Amino acid sequence: MAQKLRLHGIPMSSCAARSMICLHEKGVEFELVLVDFFVAVEHKQPPFLSKNPFGQIPVLEDGNLTLFESRAINEYVSNKFKDQGTDLIRHDSLEESALVKVWAEVESHQFHPAIYPIFYQHLLAPLYGKSSNQAIIDEHLEKLRMVLDVYEDRLGQTKYLAGDFYSLADLHHMPMMFYFMKTPWGHVVNERPRVKAWWEDISSRDAFKKVAGGMTIGDK
Amino acid sequence: MAQKLRLHGIPMSSCAARSMICLHEKGVEFELVLVDFFVAVEHKQPPFLSKNPFGQIPVLEDGNLTLFESRAINEYVSNKFKDQGTDLIRHDSLEESALVKVWAEVESHQFHPAIYPIFYQHLLAPLYGKSSNQAIIDEHLEKLRMVLDVYEDRLGQTKYLAGDFYSLADLHHMPMMFYFMKTPWGHVVNERPRVKAWWEDISSRDAFKKVAGGMTIGDK
Repeated sequence: MAQKLRLHGIPMSSCAARSMICLHEKGVEFELVLVDFFVAVEHKQPPFLSKNPFGQIPVLEDGNLTLFESRAINEYVSNKFKDQGTDLIRHDSLEESALVKVWAEVESHQFHPAIYPIFYQHLLAPLYGKSSNQAIIDEHLEKLRMVLDVYEDRLGQTKYLAGDFYSLADLHHMPMMFYFMKTPWGHVVNERPRVKAWWEDISSRDAFKKVAGGMTIGDK
Repeated sequence: MAQKLRLHGIPMSSCAARSMICLHEKGVEFELVLVDFFVAVEHKQPPFLSKNPFGQIPVLEDGNLTLFESRAINEYVSNKFKDQGTDLIRHDSLEESALVKVWAEVESHQFHPAIYPIFYQHLLAPLYGKSSNQAIIDEHLEKLRMVLDVYEDRLGQTKYLAGDFYSLADLHHMPMMFYFMKTPWGHVVNERPRVKAWWEDISSRDAFKKVAGGMTIGDK
């Protein structure tokens, strides 16, 4: 019997959540190996650094193969288990898989750089005993509005970002979208009707619901 | 006969160069469609925005398929032309292709955010009549050193980033590495012997040499 996949992380981590959502979409059984993130700071110690030299979660172990970077883990899982669960990469169509890649890169290079600093300043900085910087939040809200304006147009042409199918391109957005909706600026999403409908659609998926409850950063 | 691929961009653009290097590695004929970047600011006008709503170069057109984001273009080209030129994605091995993806994501999420602000402040800002901000440069040099320390270790285990083979994971670094070596901080690369040897190796490839001459930002 094949060994169960091992995902090292913690449920509240946006990046670990990104890979957990994918594993659930694919119907892949895995063991979540909890990392002692806050007390022992295990991810910055040598045993963990031998798995990911950047000292970040998640890490996926599949037998002797060790992978890190959540988006790379998700491509691997989508490729290896292409015949089960949701087809997240459209492996039967060169054109559709190319569009999944385009909009996954948009997440990495347009959406994430705009939204992450808001998440960091509003939800993470207080966790580390730091005060949040409103000027940085305002600057990035402006960038996020521009990105979501493009999404609003795009979602008028196709149901999901890469086409009329849910894919990794949508999935990769979910943890940051979820945390952003906990901030006082969720209206930036809600005032764009197609983006709002897209978020309501993808966040109602079973695979996401299995993970959302663990994303507790910012809860009182 | 299949229509020639059309890449919209300018040779000095680091992102257009990223895709041109890939097209040359794959031995794919393409037409470079010059974008009037500085005078007409064509990439911010509606005809171009219909190809890439973010108003950035490059854009690849292959028949009716229009793609943007240089790294997504490169995956498409590597997939479509997998049987010619250099195998940049290791399509015959699930494990090797996963490691290409991991280190390509490292480029996107560790290397690029560290090096790009240095490139912007030192080489791009003056082009737009702005002064460069040394505090930002210093902050990002520190981040870049930490990333390159990881690379120095990694390149002691494998000849290239993803394994003992040149891949998209290496290729995606090249335009920023090239421009960084024009700054006064090239010693940050050169004082790490394996990173230096890796850069000398990959920058001596024919496909890169065809593109390097056009990357003229910062030349007097």
